[in-house]
Amino acid sequence: MMFNSILCRYHEIATKGNNRIMFERCLVDNIHCLFKKAGFDYPVRRVRGRIWIEKKDGALFDAEELMNISEVLQRTFGIESFSPAIKLEPSMDVLEAKVKELAPVVFEEFFQKYSNVTFRVRARRSNKQFPLCSKDIEIRLADALTSVVDEDRLTVNLDEAMVTFGCEVRDEFALLFLNETKGPGGLPVGSNEGAVALFSGGIDSPVACYMTMKRGCPVDFVAFHSNPYTPQETTDKIKRIADHMNLFQRGGKLFLCNLVEFQKRVRDYCTPKYRTILYRRGMLRIAEKIANKYHRIALLTGDSVGQVASQTLQNMRTIDAATPMLVLRPLVGMDKMETIRIAEKIGTFALSNVQVPDSCTVFSPSQAATTSDIATIEAEEALIPDYEAILTEIAESAEKI
Amino acid sequence: MMFNSILCRYHEIATKGNNRIMFERCLVDNIHCLFKKAGFDYPVRRVRGRIWIEKKDGALFDAEELMNISEVLQRTFGIESFSPAIKLEPSMDVLEAKVKELAPVVFEEFFQKYSNVTFRVRARRSNKQFPLCSKDIEIRLADALTSVVDEDRLTVNLDEAMVTFGCEVRDEFALLFLNETKGPGGLPVGSNEGAVALFSGGIDSPVACYMTMKRGCPVDFVAFHSNPYTPQETTDKIKRIADHMNLFQRGGKLFLCNLVEFQKRVRDYCTPKYRTILYRRGMLRIAEKIANKYHRIALLTGDSVGQVASQTLQNMRTIDAATPMLVLRPLVGMDKMETIRIAEKIGTFALSNVQVPDSCTVFSPSQAATTSDIATIEAEEALIPDYEAILTEIAESAEKI
Repeated sequence: MMFNSILCRYHEIATKGNNRIMFERCLVDNIHCLFKKAGFDYPVRRVRGRIWIEKKDGALFDAEELMNISEVLQRTFGIESFSPAIKLEPSMDVLEAKVKELAPVVFEEFFQKYSNVTFRVRARRSNKQFPLCSKDIEIRLADALTSVVDEDRLTVNLDEAMVTFGCEVRDEFALLFLNETKGPGGLPVGSNEGAVALFSGGIDSPVACYMTMKRGCPVDFVAFHSNPYTPQETTDKIKRIADHMNLFQRGGKLFLCNLVEFQKRVRDYCTPKYRTILYRRGMLRIAEKIANKYHRIALLTGDSVGQVASQTLQNMRTIDAATPMLVLRPLVGMDKMETIRIAEKIGTFALSNVQVPDSCTVFSPSQAATTSDIATIEAEEALIPDYEAILTEIAESAEKI
Repeated sequence: MMFNSILCRYHEIATKGNNRIMFERCLVDNIHCLFKKAGFDYPVRRVRGRIWIEKKDGALFDAEELMNISEVLQRTFGIESFSPAIKLEPSMDVLEAKVKELAPVVFEEFFQKYSNVTFRVRARRSNKQFPLCSKDIEIRLADALTSVVDEDRLTVNLDEAMVTFGCEVRDEFALLFLNETKGPGGLPVGSNEGAVALFSGGIDSPVACYMTMKRGCPVDFVAFHSNPYTPQETTDKIKRIADHMNLFQRGGKLFLCNLVEFQKRVRDYCTPKYRTILYRRGMLRIAEKIANKYHRIALLTGDSVGQVASQTLQNMRTIDAATPMLVLRPLVGMDKMETIRIAEKIGTFALSNVQVPDSCTVFSPSQAATTSDIATIEAEEALIPDYEAILTEIAESAEKI
């Protein structure tokens, strides 16, 4: 379809006032970086409120290239939408000629399925020297279009059309494009400070990471296993999901921690019904140590109020009190089904939905407490010999991947 | 349409094991309470995995009653879906007769619009003594149905049908119903502990409250004004939105606090660019005092990472450090457009989207800091005479509504 460029639009960045240029640069860098990770490389440029991708020599993209690029742009946070486009001289004659060339091909496909096809033309003019205003460009292009296609089978619909011809007239060039593909929205990863996620093989934590990256924060992952009480598959699964999450950012680190020595002490010295709470507090503290070492200023969990016993508001409060650090919980107000829907969309559901033993359930009691208070839990922790030292040891011996 | 009962289904509660009965009772009480607030009263009962509403005398509901009840059930958290239903004897003859009576009326409406109408019958049998299994009930009712309607214009579609006849056969009675209306999902408010929300007239905080109530937590509201620097409309707007939020729960309290004495001191003693951060920390501390007084164990804000200057991750960290209390931020990973969509759905967008001066912007600096560290901000606070006393005074003199 002779596209020689791709036009990317952003939305929220445009509201950033003085910091806008920082956000734009971050987005350009990210697109470029995710392109390279996907195995290709094209120049990416900022052009007045848009981001612009074309080949060095201005050559056409083939169908496979467009598909690969589209796949990357759909996971680049900050992008609102994008369109493969045809870059042309900014002249009405050239634009009309190109529309006449394209229209028969484009409409033929729809005529095969529908007796009547709705269409619209949408034009924008950032070049105010251009002799026609947006409205007039739209009329001229619609006329060009209907002159080469069976007019009786067309209906204009400005609100919702099967075919939209888009046109932007800029200073040095004009663009024609057809459809708009939605990007993931949000802010470019790296436009905000980083967080360290408590990352399990479950459904929730990858979704929590996705939502946090989407707000501009790079995410590193701290995961726990209990070798030899959990099998190799536990860490394999975690690695697979962390790799998948890194498709959305330049590359977060994964820290694999063996929790088993800590868990044994909890088992041996503390009240069984509090084990999960004590594990979770220990995990937060280990993650905090790792976050401090790597200058990350927040922790991140997939907690949702009321989902399981450790997530009653009381237990969440008790667990939160284990660290002075800011803890982000993007799923805190979400139903499981809403989380699952996002997991499916971002491709983690199938990876998470493989049943392997998980570190939290090692030595887990038959009956977990749904209530707790901070003083009681602190007293339980005081019973564990070398409590702080063992957590430090686990954090320091974490396997960094 | 001769409905004499309403059948409510829940989903997540069903996974609660030993605590299930507590969740069910809470849901029944909430439905009853929201009915009374809406000005009517019907018996609400638990019946084996379902909740059941009918009039004392078993009489039919009229159209207006059904509409009013539906309106309430759509904002009762914990309800997955509901259907107006016809309660009948658990006998195949009675069920078939009723289907034959209903079908012509139901299909007539669709035949006026469509040449061919898709339908299905879905049956469940909790009474295992009943002579037919679910599958056979479905076949018998479909036969009854097609015997009274023009069969050539019907097509069975089990996946997606224009008309669904539902049937449940229970021990003492059977039910026939047509459509299923979706409820809001989540958990019944009150099945978890309560939170105190930092509540402004903006778009975000009501959505954050909605999401937290949806996870079972009752919410009280702490709001700030700066009389005489903010007008009467500021508090009027807040009251209107808090009233609206109480449509979703039994009734949260609203605490109106006058922040102006604190703001004057921040203006007089501290660096201008930190004002918003210092205000937010003061607000959190006041809300914490109110939460402690009323035995609420968490705070709740509408913060979303990166949306405005005070919501960079750094500033969020600095603000979070003002309180040891658990702070829930359900919108932390959401884009503004996602929040707006929920606000529209729950009816708060129009109320929030009225521009009135807000307490946060009183004495607000021309340039707000996007970065901060905790030590610097604590040093700023140390410059304010009677810092703690003034916050206590504001909390204690809050107007309780």
